[in-house]
Amino acid sequence: MAFINDHYLELKDSYLFSTIAKKINEFTSTHPDKKLIRMGIGDVTLPLVPAVLAAMHEAVEEMGQKETFKGYGPEQGYDFLHEAIQKYYASRGVNLSTDEIFISDGAKSDIGNITDIFSNANVVMIPDPVYPVYVDTNIMSGRQIEFLDSHAKNNFLPMPPSQDASPDIIYLCSPNNPTGSVYNKEQLKAWVDYANHTDAVILFDAAYECFIQDPSLPRSIFEIEGAKTCAIEFCSLSKTAGFTGTRCGYTIVPKNLLGINLETDETSLNKLWLRRQTTKFNGVPYIIQKGAAAVFSPEGQAQIQKNITYYMENAQLIASTMKEKGIEFVGGDNSPYIWLKCPNGMKSWDFFDYLLNEIAVVGTPGAGFGHNGEGYFRLTAFGSKEATLEAMERFKTLSL
Amino acid sequence: MAFINDHYLELKDSYLFSTIAKKINEFTSTHPDKKLIRMGIGDVTLPLVPAVLAAMHEAVEEMGQKETFKGYGPEQGYDFLHEAIQKYYASRGVNLSTDEIFISDGAKSDIGNITDIFSNANVVMIPDPVYPVYVDTNIMSGRQIEFLDSHAKNNFLPMPPSQDASPDIIYLCSPNNPTGSVYNKEQLKAWVDYANHTDAVILFDAAYECFIQDPSLPRSIFEIEGAKTCAIEFCSLSKTAGFTGTRCGYTIVPKNLLGINLETDETSLNKLWLRRQTTKFNGVPYIIQKGAAAVFSPEGQAQIQKNITYYMENAQLIASTMKEKGIEFVGGDNSPYIWLKCPNGMKSWDFFDYLLNEIAVVGTPGAGFGHNGEGYFRLTAFGSKEATLEAMERFKTLSL
Repeated sequence: MAFINDHYLELKDSYLFSTIAKKINEFTSTHPDKKLIRMGIGDVTLPLVPAVLAAMHEAVEEMGQKETFKGYGPEQGYDFLHEAIQKYYASRGVNLSTDEIFISDGAKSDIGNITDIFSNANVVMIPDPVYPVYVDTNIMSGRQIEFLDSHAKNNFLPMPPSQDASPDIIYLCSPNNPTGSVYNKEQLKAWVDYANHTDAVILFDAAYECFIQDPSLPRSIFEIEGAKTCAIEFCSLSKTAGFTGTRCGYTIVPKNLLGINLETDETSLNKLWLRRQTTKFNGVPYIIQKGAAAVFSPEGQAQIQKNITYYMENAQLIASTMKEKGIEFVGGDNSPYIWLKCPNGMKSWDFFDYLLNEIAVVGTPGAGFGHNGEGYFRLTAFGSKEATLEAMERFKTLSL
Repeated sequence: MAFINDHYLELKDSYLFSTIAKKINEFTSTHPDKKLIRMGIGDVTLPLVPAVLAAMHEAVEEMGQKETFKGYGPEQGYDFLHEAIQKYYASRGVNLSTDEIFISDGAKSDIGNITDIFSNANVVMIPDPVYPVYVDTNIMSGRQIEFLDSHAKNNFLPMPPSQDASPDIIYLCSPNNPTGSVYNKEQLKAWVDYANHTDAVILFDAAYECFIQDPSLPRSIFEIEGAKTCAIEFCSLSKTAGFTGTRCGYTIVPKNLLGINLETDETSLNKLWLRRQTTKFNGVPYIIQKGAAAVFSPEGQAQIQKNITYYMENAQLIASTMKEKGIEFVGGDNSPYIWLKCPNGMKSWDFFDYLLNEIAVVGTPGAGFGHNGEGYFRLTAFGSKEATLEAMERFKTLSL
């Protein structure tokens, strides 16, 4: 008799985006004349840049010729892409060897699959509010979850817990989704020291690193001394280069990072992850890896920077509108997300309904990201400039 | 303290292909004049067909225009590809709904990841010899494995065990890797009846279905009555359309397939797999899905059929050479693999060394696929016609 993994039954159904879709449908059918502006889902809108397109066209051609056709590639990615990423990190003083870099189809896959190599007996610590994947993937493996309160009092940048908490695995996301807050070097150093001291592993989600404008802020946890013995970093081209539908990310597992086994020896997590990936994954399409490598070329970097600037101008526009209206918020300076306190004590969903009905603008209720998200709301800067401008003009007309 | 998944330490290091590589290096450095012919690894050599290339070029263009750019798609794949696969199955009388079809980056990923949705307390039954991924992924989750003997006496087509064995999950692969043997409808019906009777789930690997030439043989387990309540099918375009480096596969999870949970109710495995994929996966690149859909167009089908015929002519050439030399073998009629008994009682690795040293031909020692593979050897039909011809000419010169 085939028994299921019963932990799946402990998962809450995710009603967040389906409820949003339902409410939008109701609104548009009763208000067919109103032009809806979507600032909810964190998906990009600008097309792929020319350098990426050219590289992918060329790779498609290669796949059509016997002499240049590529069959199975290395599961962990081609060296041409490892080397491009290696240089990208070196430009900020982080030295990686190519076999510390694993190419994948995106940060979400790796963040989900990394749980494979750890014992289910580990206690995980996850900030609240948070990207729901961290929570759900650990519920699936039946792990004990401790939440780390992230709120206005700590500027949505929670610091290490006191000694009575004892997480084995710690999730951090900076720039943060959904709050847009960013750890500085001193704060991250405190986390690195804490993890090294307690033999915990930090799973560091850097998917939004490219939006950091302040050069003093760390874009990688490996800019912090000591991180290579306590952290794994996940990154993605989804937001960096508009790859949400093109699918490529990378995960850095330092060779000096060890996990504990039930015998006496410590085990290289790099070796375990390589074993996991070579056994359960067959690599990212050659065509996509060629496109990804083009992102890191001088031409590609210049082109994606224009898009990042475009989105960050939207973020600044949203931020300045919030200031003008006297609404408390974080994010927007070094991240594409603005996390605002719903005015007049409104709850997240009430503010959602209010914005939808008053000005036909859609955002994401903070309550969808966890307990501490109640009373907050996320707006994203990934729309078009025109739509963002119009949404903010409408926002200014609200009597708040 | 971050503890690892200790089951990883129970995995045997896979020395098969690394040992082969080492022996080849030694040989080529000591015999630089000899032209090596590789018939070992099961990777394709013909380039992608024109219909696929055209579709991917077009999709790259779409990704470069704001109006046609695609961001996040459905994690389980686009409906245009579901519908193409639905029609492909309907052409052999198998009716699927589109939400029973999950698109992925390949059968290996899905076969590995499917273990997520099942309890680790399940006993799995795996044929021996076998594709090593079935074994390794279950060792990783700490499951009890029972091996199902596959040998010459049962024509490498083992049938359901007696009542005292009680597998909860059963792996079947037909056409088989590595033996090339194929179950007929009566044999598969016996497996389906057994699984339905014992509430077991069959994980059916159909990655080589396109090589079946005999129209009476089943290409999908869903051609068998009753399979929709006991089986999940994995398939891939890797061998069908040369996608080993392009990465696209699909998994069929029928809606009537149930798993047992520790409470009283049965649970839809389709719903669990959807939850797994939406949580830990973000879909296959749009560009690749467009290429995959082109495989199923009339033009694409005609073009890939030419390639399949090309490989099957190689298989026939190998098979006829084995016959001529009086070597026992299975496979080659409906599969790209020839599984031969090493002549003169040679062991797998001895025969490997013999072929390498005598005629500079590389194959795969059967012992690498499990205990019952000892004394056997796998040759693949995926090389070029010229190389296969030359290899067989050399083979004929052997005094066996």
